[in-house]
Amino acid sequence: MPVGYSQLPELSAVAGIRLSAQAARIRYEGRDDLVVMELAEGSHCAAVFTRNAFCAAPVIIAKDHLAKTLPRYLLINSGNANAGTGTPGLEDAQQSCEALAQRASCDASQVLPFSTGVIGERLPVARIESVLDDALVSLSANNWSAAAHAIMTTDTVAKGVSSTLQLGGQTVTLTGIAKGSGMIRPDMATMLAYIATDAVVEPDALQACLQQAVEQSFNRITVDGDTSTNDACVLVATGASCADCLDADHPDYPAFCAAVSKVCVQLAQLIIRDGEGATKFVSVCVEAGHDSKECLQVAYTVAHSPLVKTALFASDPNWGRILAAVGRAGLSELDIDQVELWLDDVCIVRDGGVAPDYTEEAGQRVMNQDEILIRITLGRGEASETVWTSDLSHDYVSINADYRS
Amino acid sequence: MPVGYSQLPELSAVAGIRLSAQAARIRYEGRDDLVVMELAEGSHCAAVFTRNAFCAAPVIIAKDHLAKTLPRYLLINSGNANAGTGTPGLEDAQQSCEALAQRASCDASQVLPFSTGVIGERLPVARIESVLDDALVSLSANNWSAAAHAIMTTDTVAKGVSSTLQLGGQTVTLTGIAKGSGMIRPDMATMLAYIATDAVVEPDALQACLQQAVEQSFNRITVDGDTSTNDACVLVATGASCADCLDADHPDYPAFCAAVSKVCVQLAQLIIRDGEGATKFVSVCVEAGHDSKECLQVAYTVAHSPLVKTALFASDPNWGRILAAVGRAGLSELDIDQVELWLDDVCIVRDGGVAPDYTEEAGQRVMNQDEILIRITLGRGEASETVWTSDLSHDYVSINADYRS
Repeated sequence: MPVGYSQLPELSAVAGIRLSAQAARIRYEGRDDLVVMELAEGSHCAAVFTRNAFCAAPVIIAKDHLAKTLPRYLLINSGNANAGTGTPGLEDAQQSCEALAQRASCDASQVLPFSTGVIGERLPVARIESVLDDALVSLSANNWSAAAHAIMTTDTVAKGVSSTLQLGGQTVTLTGIAKGSGMIRPDMATMLAYIATDAVVEPDALQACLQQAVEQSFNRITVDGDTSTNDACVLVATGASCADCLDADHPDYPAFCAAVSKVCVQLAQLIIRDGEGATKFVSVCVEAGHDSKECLQVAYTVAHSPLVKTALFASDPNWGRILAAVGRAGLSELDIDQVELWLDDVCIVRDGGVAPDYTEEAGQRVMNQDEILIRITLGRGEASETVWTSDLSHDYVSINADYRS
Repeated sequence: MPVGYSQLPELSAVAGIRLSAQAARIRYEGRDDLVVMELAEGSHCAAVFTRNAFCAAPVIIAKDHLAKTLPRYLLINSGNANAGTGTPGLEDAQQSCEALAQRASCDASQVLPFSTGVIGERLPVARIESVLDDALVSLSANNWSAAAHAIMTTDTVAKGVSSTLQLGGQTVTLTGIAKGSGMIRPDMATMLAYIATDAVVEPDALQACLQQAVEQSFNRITVDGDTSTNDACVLVATGASCADCLDADHPDYPAFCAAVSKVCVQLAQLIIRDGEGATKFVSVCVEAGHDSKECLQVAYTVAHSPLVKTALFASDPNWGRILAAVGRAGLSELDIDQVELWLDDVCIVRDGGVAPDYTEEAGQRVMNQDEILIRITLGRGEASETVWTSDLSHDYVSINADYRS
């Protein structure tokens, strides 16, 4: 069960977006594993992709298509990542785009492909082709929930969120879905997130908005430190609302960006809440650093430490492991007498040793919670950063020893 | 059970070294947990210590004493790391040195303290003091095995190795012991290793020899990526043999260094073979890189990847996870078409995709072994590096969720 999240909330339709989910039997039986998302003509599409050098075939093709023209369709499958598949993999991704384009009477470059699942196996293109006719006739604005389910792999719950905001007296809608549970330490974006809005947004402003939002959300989470080969995050603005067109100078642009960021943070946190084997949702906040970079360096060192993560699983206030992680994070000239360590509101370390008023009972009380804040103050600057992570449990080992991803 | 190592071999006495192991009830009942090692007058002592910013009190004191004078005694305890203990911890370490010095009629600065065990608790100095008289009367050249047992914490087996070499017609002996199983990603040295020889070695040459040996042994292993607060490695040359005095220009110096390196590599590999929860001994070899630094960057990214480590535990030839780790290691301008991935003699990836002759059966055959070589060739230079690691098993989680270290 995810930590502090039980089920997908109701997701709002977004004018200009229609979706369909189909069972193509790519790897799973008896469930949907293919999504076609149609974007109304004139929609703008911003996207960020993994920086893993071994990026998957669909990532290469999607980037190429995106550079050529405005997309009309997203073609997303789960069960097979089409990664590590060389030239044949590129041909498979391209062929699946062509199969959809032919049936939808558009150009193949107007289709963006996305894949998630097992690495190193050929994509079963014929199975995908066999459900495309059904997908196109069943497109509906109300299929967001079905799509959120169809993109799941080791996820235990479908992930999505909707919100609205007022732009110049007009209501615009934002709906996003995401998948991801393991191989999570996104670099540019997490393993598949799609956010759509009917706001009218100028393309450069849309891309800038997405990059900024991703930086503070998907790029601040880690389950296991492993960056996927297939990460992608897409933000579509259909322009179907009656709101003004937003460019970077429009007075409503900051509000729009804040709303997109909020959706991204919620989706990113859902990925951690449903992290493989997660029993805790942990925020690691590093404050009073020289700069953002060193705060992140400390935060990720703590968030990736197997010793810290197993102590969290055990609800053990074993703060020595956190301190050891801070100490090995590679910060030059760190004055350990200035470092403070807090669990929620409990100060554990101060002046280079245990805080005089710290009690094991107080630490235990925080550690027993499902949601824990580890706060580290470096005492040498003004910068701060927060990353979100999960614990390391027996289920993490079971899931990853049993599942071929 | 450690991988490919069942029990401590016979350890040779080293002329000039006497040891005693005692049960001080520091944390454990019914076993030895304190070692006193006496170095003959005139012995030289080289040492390297952790670079963790939160280094433990005994590390600070040992460095200070070493800078002042030639040590006569090493005082080593398990069960308590005396780390994260602030000023009181420094006083405890100093007081334990003084207690031994008083009884042995030497100066406190001639005692080097070492501690390993739980972080953040005060060292029980009185318990240590209570066994020092017994320790001094029972010093013997033949207590290496007892000492190797007394320094264990989560280790499942005592670790040691002896060898001899000929220097100018004289036989000299090398004996080393080590402990370490978790919180293992040494940075300068692993969590407690002691090597002694009766060779005669000039102090600067001894320190250079140790640093070089550690760089290629203890600094090439990782269990969980967590660098300890207490890492220390000590090389003592008693000079009690009749061999020539070695300085850096002596023709026998390279042979001596090679023998020390070999002992260090054996001890370092024993730590991995006994890594917490280890069921596999894995060598990650990265070849044909631009330089040593980028080879290590790739090797450690693979060796730390929880997804790779759980696949190793499952004996699953899930090479996509290895490739994804290589791809996220942060090498700039990596041409993935040049990268090859091998498991032992089986080529899996070539020309950016699966090798045409690769079969799942061949990969499975290697993965079923207890000892596995993962070989990655980057195809862009002459440098190569190897690191040694273990897998991530259920027992790793159990050990670290149950044990307060």
